[in-house]
Amino acid sequence: MLSLYGPHDPVHAFVPYPDAPVPRAPSGPLSGLSFAVKDLFDVAGYPTGGGNPIVLAMSGIKQHTAPTVQRLLDAGARFVGKTVTDELAFSMNGDNAHFGAPVNPAAPLRITGGSSSGSASAVAAGLCDFALGTDTGGSVRAPASHCGLVGLRPTHGRVSLQGALDLAPSFDTCGWFARDVQTFARVADVLLGREAEAPQRGVRLLWPEDLWALAEPAAAQALRPAAERVQALLGAAAPVEVALDSFDAMYWHFRHLQGREAWLTDGPLIERYAPPLGPGVAERFAWSRGVSDEQVRDAHAFRERFRHRLAELLGSDGVLLMPTMPDIAPLRAVGEAGLEDYRNRAIRLLCVAGLSGFAQLSMPLARREGAPLGLSLLGPAGSDRRLIALAERLAD
Amino acid sequence: MLSLYGPHDPVHAFVPYPDAPVPRAPSGPLSGLSFAVKDLFDVAGYPTGGGNPIVLAMSGIKQHTAPTVQRLLDAGARFVGKTVTDELAFSMNGDNAHFGAPVNPAAPLRITGGSSSGSASAVAAGLCDFALGTDTGGSVRAPASHCGLVGLRPTHGRVSLQGALDLAPSFDTCGWFARDVQTFARVADVLLGREAEAPQRGVRLLWPEDLWALAEPAAAQALRPAAERVQALLGAAAPVEVALDSFDAMYWHFRHLQGREAWLTDGPLIERYAPPLGPGVAERFAWSRGVSDEQVRDAHAFRERFRHRLAELLGSDGVLLMPTMPDIAPLRAVGEAGLEDYRNRAIRLLCVAGLSGFAQLSMPLARREGAPLGLSLLGPAGSDRRLIALAERLAD
Repeated sequence: MLSLYGPHDPVHAFVPYPDAPVPRAPSGPLSGLSFAVKDLFDVAGYPTGGGNPIVLAMSGIKQHTAPTVQRLLDAGARFVGKTVTDELAFSMNGDNAHFGAPVNPAAPLRITGGSSSGSASAVAAGLCDFALGTDTGGSVRAPASHCGLVGLRPTHGRVSLQGALDLAPSFDTCGWFARDVQTFARVADVLLGREAEAPQRGVRLLWPEDLWALAEPAAAQALRPAAERVQALLGAAAPVEVALDSFDAMYWHFRHLQGREAWLTDGPLIERYAPPLGPGVAERFAWSRGVSDEQVRDAHAFRERFRHRLAELLGSDGVLLMPTMPDIAPLRAVGEAGLEDYRNRAIRLLCVAGLSGFAQLSMPLARREGAPLGLSLLGPAGSDRRLIALAERLAD
Repeated sequence: MLSLYGPHDPVHAFVPYPDAPVPRAPSGPLSGLSFAVKDLFDVAGYPTGGGNPIVLAMSGIKQHTAPTVQRLLDAGARFVGKTVTDELAFSMNGDNAHFGAPVNPAAPLRITGGSSSGSASAVAAGLCDFALGTDTGGSVRAPASHCGLVGLRPTHGRVSLQGALDLAPSFDTCGWFARDVQTFARVADVLLGREAEAPQRGVRLLWPEDLWALAEPAAAQALRPAAERVQALLGAAAPVEVALDSFDAMYWHFRHLQGREAWLTDGPLIERYAPPLGPGVAERFAWSRGVSDEQVRDAHAFRERFRHRLAELLGSDGVLLMPTMPDIAPLRAVGEAGLEDYRNRAIRLLCVAGLSGFAQLSMPLARREGAPLGLSLLGPAGSDRRLIALAERLAD
């Protein structure tokens, strides 16, 4: 009855759409590299499902390819498919109640993290060389850390999200994953430009003590040797404190803004079609609906203050050296309730880049209990290419 | 972000695919009638989702329209959309974990029944004049009874299912719903042919006492006046017993055959993609996988014996007068576990037509607690048009 389409995909990273021709330049800087695209981005010839069956049904076949995807094709990269996203990108669990949970090839009993779960899984499994994801609250950084990949949350607005489904536009960014820094940097040359930043200057490494205190002690311990190698190369990191008011304040302001925007984005769909949403996702949207105007106003003001403060702390050359996530990926078996606690801890780390809009690069430089752990560099707005250059030096 | 497609649909009967042009004959016997199609049938310009997101993803846009749908278009009927089906048609609950539960307009707190849930909901809500469904184990008869509609399970093989997703091919049939017998008969003229059967002869009405004993006493009581009207018109029904061996035997043989065929149909999809299946559906497929060759052999032999026995009992003029379902639709609030018990009772009534392959017409002739109840006529193979003619006489 059913033809079985889709790339050979033992980790369930891909949505099995029928193959459509996706032309690319015959040669270019990304020649020889294959890539996948999170199923939030339009690719002509394919639907855009957003991890939700009603969105998929409404999509039809897209006529236009998102400009960021087109840049990769124009650079000669070969498109291999669209990857599973957590539902409506509003989850960090790497699961989807309708399309399934991609496997974490670096730690198969553990979650990939999300919402760019399929993109991370596909790259980690070697099914493609790099993959596009999006990061609103951690959706590139979490799976990069959990799957042992290089992953960037770019400066907000730096890489176009035109032709992609939104979640919370003032936080949404377009990032990508690769297994190694060299491949990652080749993609950066295309998406960020080679000459986009000021010539390399000295780096002022900073050690955010309060962020390190949010990591599981064993995880901080496991990251220590890599952090020392970074400092050996770039100079000792000066201790700083990053939080404004408190981590609780940062957490709630982030969630209020993200929740309000997520409801503005998806509320009309949810109210009109009452689509059955997966566990956790349904609850988060229901919560988002109830965020008050006053909470949003307070959060906007807080975000401005936080951005200003972090900009002052970093200046033009400051780089935070920090854990990407509080720990290795949780076991799949812990379920939604167990993940909720982990997610809430993770947001406290992740919202630093989220609230500021600054760039954060996660590098797979440690392991614990056989599972990967990411170490991050977080720099000021526009420092994206410079962070990647630092990672290249570290990899030499 | 999202355009809101789809017909105006307060009961969530439709899958909101973007509208595509579906040409029809400018005039014909079904001119002026609108219809919907269960999302198992191919309609050119639309995907076929089968109530499962992975099947929808794999579908692509269909190039060909299923012949039965095409006959309706060629007769001048206007296509208005594709309706929600229970997942992979393997449920009688009228729910879908991915696309939602269509509302039963005749009893909004109660289930529609399934798996042709959206088709029944759309017709009962007046969103179209008739709708195609399929009936493998009761998927037209159950929602017809629960939503107060006329619905036919035709003689097996009588109406083409080419271009439709299978569940269990030796049981699958293509039926339809309408609010009134006149509209129902107009569709029958097109799908069954006006002259397909022998000229009207006398009817020998039969009263299957053992089937009536399977109905809730209050439901049997509520159906009694309608049953008496039928007998006043067609003559007193002679008491008979229908079950072979036992209802337990019939139930299990039916389930073994259906389960084996369902696994042959959908097992490859399930094994390759591990799609998350909704509650109940997942368990039924897991059970189906374990049906043994010996159980299938026994069930085949039993089915032959039962068919032979029922053919002898009915001859060419016998018609069983029987309850369609054990009771009015269960409340939505009872949940999957509560529905399982109801479903198991219902299968004992429904498997008479399923195992024999004979025609059964459900008519909305009673109510109880404000909800509809169907009374059925079940006749021998090929008696479809004659049963509808009897229903027309009853409606005069």
